[in-house]
Amino acid sequence: MVKFQALDRTFSALSDPTRRDILERLARGPASISELAQPFGLSLPGLMKHVRILEEADLVTTEKKGRTRECRLGEAQLDDVSKWVEEYRKRWERRLDRLESYLEGKKRGRT
Amino acid sequence: MVKFQALDRTFSALSDPTRRDILERLARGPASISELAQPFGLSLPGLMKHVRILEEADLVTTEKKGRTRECRLGEAQLDDVSKWVEEYRKRWERRLDRLESYLEGKKRGRT
Repeated sequence: MVKFQALDRTFSALSDPTRRDILERLARGPASISELAQPFGLSLPGLMKHVRILEEADLVTTEKKGRTRECRLGEAQLDDVSKWVEEYRKRWERRLDRLESYLEGKKRGRT
Repeated sequence: MVKFQALDRTFSALSDPTRRDILERLARGPASISELAQPFGLSLPGLMKHVRILEEADLVTTEKKGRTRECRLGEAQLDDVSKWVEEYRKRWERRLDRLESYLEGKKRGRT
């Protein structure tokens, strides 16, 4: 299986609905901290806390532009998450396939 | 976007490497608590804590069988996680497409 320490941070960052909403907002285009804070009714420090967690997981990058700080999606494009989920499902399906052929074999043995 | 409160619990449960390993082990077949604890070098209470978090996220179910407790994969087959990641990526790609056609337009305007 994929062994990525980064997965801990990514999954943890995604476990909060506000942080997922911030990502969905940034998927439509960059935004300043105050533009992000407004729709969530969050204080700027409250929002910054979430943004920092997303930054640590490489899901968001920020850049100071004059008096504002612009946020945009980072490089972590959730490839690792997809890969992990996909491999996990494949294992599970292989197990179901094995069970199925085992049961098929049993059935044929009986007739 | 998909709005699932359950996503909080699922992502949070997946943010720990031991819990992901437990899921990968159970994808190969059911196991008792002590069978699970052994390869991780964890105490039974330590492992139970992880199993309970996975149970709360419907990723694992457990059943008392005589003196042991059997664990198997639960019903949450990570469909919500896949759906969320997929929608997020689609948004991001649509944005890239829009940017591309904007740049194409600019280029045509110049020639």
